[in-house]
Amino acid sequence: MSRAIELAARGIGHTSPNPVVGCVVLDSAGRTAGEGWHQRAGGPHAEIHALRAAGERARGGTAIVTLEPCNHTGRTGACAQALIDAGIARVVYAVADPTPTATGGAATLAGAGLDVEAGLLAGTAAAGNEAWLTSVLLGRPFVLWKYAATLDGRIAAADGTSRWISSAESRADVHRLRAAADAVIVGSGTARADDPQLGARVSGLADTEVSQPLRVVVDSGAAAVKAGARVLDGTAPTLIAVAEDADAAHLDGLAPIVRLPRAAEGPGLHIPALLQALYEREVRSVLLEGGPTLAGAFFAAKAVDKVIGYLAPVLLGSGPVTLGDAGITTIAQALRLDVTDTARLGPDLRITATPVRHTRPEEN
Amino acid sequence: MSRAIELAARGIGHTSPNPVVGCVVLDSAGRTAGEGWHQRAGGPHAEIHALRAAGERARGGTAIVTLEPCNHTGRTGACAQALIDAGIARVVYAVADPTPTATGGAATLAGAGLDVEAGLLAGTAAAGNEAWLTSVLLGRPFVLWKYAATLDGRIAAADGTSRWISSAESRADVHRLRAAADAVIVGSGTARADDPQLGARVSGLADTEVSQPLRVVVDSGAAAVKAGARVLDGTAPTLIAVAEDADAAHLDGLAPIVRLPRAAEGPGLHIPALLQALYEREVRSVLLEGGPTLAGAFFAAKAVDKVIGYLAPVLLGSGPVTLGDAGITTIAQALRLDVTDTARLGPDLRITATPVRHTRPEEN
Repeated sequence: MSRAIELAARGIGHTSPNPVVGCVVLDSAGRTAGEGWHQRAGGPHAEIHALRAAGERARGGTAIVTLEPCNHTGRTGACAQALIDAGIARVVYAVADPTPTATGGAATLAGAGLDVEAGLLAGTAAAGNEAWLTSVLLGRPFVLWKYAATLDGRIAAADGTSRWISSAESRADVHRLRAAADAVIVGSGTARADDPQLGARVSGLADTEVSQPLRVVVDSGAAAVKAGARVLDGTAPTLIAVAEDADAAHLDGLAPIVRLPRAAEGPGLHIPALLQALYEREVRSVLLEGGPTLAGAFFAAKAVDKVIGYLAPVLLGSGPVTLGDAGITTIAQALRLDVTDTARLGPDLRITATPVRHTRPEEN
Repeated sequence: MSRAIELAARGIGHTSPNPVVGCVVLDSAGRTAGEGWHQRAGGPHAEIHALRAAGERARGGTAIVTLEPCNHTGRTGACAQALIDAGIARVVYAVADPTPTATGGAATLAGAGLDVEAGLLAGTAAAGNEAWLTSVLLGRPFVLWKYAATLDGRIAAADGTSRWISSAESRADVHRLRAAADAVIVGSGTARADDPQLGARVSGLADTEVSQPLRVVVDSGAAAVKAGARVLDGTAPTLIAVAEDADAAHLDGLAPIVRLPRAAEGPGLHIPALLQALYEREVRSVLLEGGPTLAGAFFAAKAVDKVIGYLAPVLLGSGPVTLGDAGITTIAQALRLDVTDTARLGPDLRITATPVRHTRPEEN
């Protein structure tokens, strides 16, 4: 199963709106006969790749899959049936398929007389499909907020300069996050201040081999993105989200726009509507790159599922801070997180954390 | 030598203005004959304790000491002479004594015919005496800035509440830092907002066993500390630093005050003068506990030698930030640090870092 999880990870960034899936087929003597992973949406599922590689050796063998084999015929055939047809005797999978249309594969397999075992390394496999599983559960894209800041929480100096606070290693890591996401989102402040290009460049891979995320600018007033902005270049698709009442005539022909309601309170757009619009465009994972105002709005809407912070060993003492108003005014309302990982990236620290939905018990 | 360094550490918080020192005496066959450490200023040095424990077994043996044995007769006798008198044949020490009055011990020992070796585990031993060595080098107390903040760099919520951002484990660790320091410093903002007591409480030790630091409040206008303030209780001495022109009549009889010049620029006192005043009171190590304004002034004065940050996995999105104006306006002036240690303390991260005096090379 560890090997199947490894294989699944090769699909990260390429399979959306599908999950990543890996599969190892063993022959009847327990030797590896075939491997496969879901390589891209619309292409064969992992099981099909692995069965093809195994050929006749699959008969009487075992299929080890990171996700419950699908039970429906979509763009490709049902994997449960393919496993039965190939003569597989036993199926071991990690995580049950939660989608209403695809679920039921395990029952189909058991009904056909195969041994079926569920749950092996389920935690690890689920972590590998974190974005997809979250998006299925919540009916909106998984949102990862990334920030890069000094030890005193600044994202730029007082005069707005910020190149570079974080290390080259941290910046390379951000490109990896972009390549794994279906969409990257910035707000109008970031678009104005940094004119970011938002493409993913991954060392060792040609640009054409890297999965480029949809670049989304939340530009409520349609005043930040102008002709010539780097985010409008040809490397990846772009979407400008503007308010329903914004005058966006100057964007005609520059980039697709989506009109959304304004937030009920505070500046900007209604975040759930933004996420819904992206979900309808088959975006299952979002990398939120800020800035502080937009990130605050996402937190206020309880729409952040994971946080990755790049902390540079730098102090500034002034300048804009990481996170803006998230509707929190007193310590009892503080958003608590669990730190799930820390790592050194060059001189920087990378902190990975997940919001917890309960508050910490009172302490004295 | 590792054992001697361990022994030395037992003196932390008790030996100022002296260094911590540990000593192991081996007999002529290389077996441990005696151990000792400098327990308190004015008491016998480490070598004397170890020689006493070894007795006659010291003759022909080896003394392993973390610091070059002293050469002068101060409140206690010269250790170099004591080693010679005890018949020690060989002395191994880690770090040379940089003080003009005590140096020369190695030469005295060699002159008397002893084998002398310097530098064994010098880095580790120097780290154990970091505060004392820095204070000797700079002629002012070693300054450790401690802060506790959220991931977004806030030290309190918008309404000023801050109990508790950091974990119980982190707060216990701060008490350990206080007990190791000669003085704890806060500014008027912290004195007003938190009414801190600033005592050191260490789990497993009675309050009388814990070395209490001098509590220093930088109260330039003599307006923050009032009768009844917790920092004026009887658990430890207190010093209120006020501006030369401040009206501090209400502090008469409450606490000793020291009058200092105001800063040439910005609010508050002249930081070098403050440190000089503390140095004259035999303070060799200072724990700077903030708040942001005072910490900014210390950084502006280049008077911070080490930083320990307790980062709680919490987000607030508003509220006061960790560090105030340090005279930095653009990224090229950013204060860069080296992270020397990271640790988990309950849910929190503790980051230890040291300012570097050079800027990072240009990157593209």
